[in-house]
Amino acid sequence: MDPEEVGRLAGTALALEVSVTPKPGSVDRSHDFPDTRFEHFLASAVAVEPAVAGAASGELSLGEAVLDGVRRFSEAQSGGNTHFGALTLLIPLAAGYPDGGFEGASLAVEEASVEDAVLYVRALREAGVGGLEGRESLDALSEGAEEELRERGVSFEELMEMSEGDDVASDLVNGFERTRRAAETLSGRLEDTGFNEAAVETFVEVVAEGDSFVRKRHGEETHRRVRERFREVQDSGFDRELLGELDRELNYTGVNPGSSADFLGAAIFLNLVRGWRP
Amino acid sequence: MDPEEVGRLAGTALALEVSVTPKPGSVDRSHDFPDTRFEHFLASAVAVEPAVAGAASGELSLGEAVLDGVRRFSEAQSGGNTHFGALTLLIPLAAGYPDGGFEGASLAVEEASVEDAVLYVRALREAGVGGLEGRESLDALSEGAEEELRERGVSFEELMEMSEGDDVASDLVNGFERTRRAAETLSGRLEDTGFNEAAVETFVEVVAEGDSFVRKRHGEETHRRVRERFREVQDSGFDRELLGELDRELNYTGVNPGSSADFLGAAIFLNLVRGWRP
Repeated sequence: MDPEEVGRLAGTALALEVSVTPKPGSVDRSHDFPDTRFEHFLASAVAVEPAVAGAASGELSLGEAVLDGVRRFSEAQSGGNTHFGALTLLIPLAAGYPDGGFEGASLAVEEASVEDAVLYVRALREAGVGGLEGRESLDALSEGAEEELRERGVSFEELMEMSEGDDVASDLVNGFERTRRAAETLSGRLEDTGFNEAAVETFVEVVAEGDSFVRKRHGEETHRRVRERFREVQDSGFDRELLGELDRELNYTGVNPGSSADFLGAAIFLNLVRGWRP
Repeated sequence: MDPEEVGRLAGTALALEVSVTPKPGSVDRSHDFPDTRFEHFLASAVAVEPAVAGAASGELSLGEAVLDGVRRFSEAQSGGNTHFGALTLLIPLAAGYPDGGFEGASLAVEEASVEDAVLYVRALREAGVGGLEGRESLDALSEGAEEELRERGVSFEELMEMSEGDDVASDLVNGFERTRRAAETLSGRLEDTGFNEAAVETFVEVVAEGDSFVRKRHGEETHRRVRERFREVQDSGFDRELLGELDRELNYTGVNPGSSADFLGAAIFLNLVRGWRP
């Protein structure tokens, strides 16, 4: 598959993902955050296309591509970090999936170097992300982190393994299991219903499995309660009233299932790569 | 300016344009048409990027680029004609504006050939567009139109001149006056307010000047009445209640100011080319 086309399918996937509504607690086409708005995500989605294309062609290594993506989305809009987590999933998928499936994507992660780990923490810092949970032995946001990674010879894969509390990082070293499941869920639902419905239901199922972004920001107790609420929506057959109630509540309290939105974006991307079109 | 970047700014502009809400009678992030939905416009916006980039680099002539864009958006989504009018404006702008301003864009129109006219009517037919109003001497949708253009030696510019009842086609041969005005209006408002507000107000002002898509589809009387209503909103200082009422009414009656949405997309594109970022 043409690498430029892979890049555009990633841009399309991210634009579609942010449009899915309602995604309780997230930016969607009916809900902005105070500083990061819907239009910031749209501009960012298109802006990262060359970074994804660079990973797909092999011109950029994983670390280079993530850093390039962060710099591109930071220049393209003023809403801050839009797609760091999404890039963490999409870049290895772009590098390996179109020709080698999930094994190809896992291989891309395995083969990434210490320098990729260094560039990844640089991207993390430039994006202003709060760090990867679980990687207690390394403060990735400190100035010395890059040197420390080099000295200790920590590869990109090892960095992801050290980040076991982060759903997205973990998925890269667990055969993309959650990404795979989200893509299958979406694909099945797309046969029965329109895009938005299918994507909302997929999002609900993903959050019901847990969301490390919520756990990291709001603690175990809130995380447990939020998962429970999404499970109720799932068990009700995606009852729209229940979903609307949850949407209003999470938008009000500011609890944002950000990792789940990243999985939804990756699921849409994989369906596009496999030939689905809206 | 890098032609690929020009293409991505066009994709960004079209994604932003369709997100602007409320745009009474149009697809926006709060309103779908039955068969052409928000997600179709998003996928289409990204899909046409290489066509715009091709016009910017000179690799594609105007007619080739419009036809390429139509084929790309037709493959990328199942909602039918999304961006034919938008491409008619964006392609010559991409070809001439970044380096030569509006004069450069006008020059690109002047220099386009008979073959560009031929490819343009082919694109018109493939997009399933209802034809250009005012061009009574040529049925552009007939099979014989291409041969007729060649025999009569009608250039792209002459074809646009024959289409005087079409606001978009006319603008290409009138120095992009309406596009220019829309871009200035948007630019001025962006200094005072957020993107969505600025774009809504620009849209209202553009429709208040008239919309050939409405006139063509619904006749002079409806067109006169619709313009009047948009003028009222404008005169009220963009009163939100009045605007909401008009939105509900046009969405219900299916009167779609499609030409004005094309001008809004071009206005956003020009602001992006000049360096504005959301």
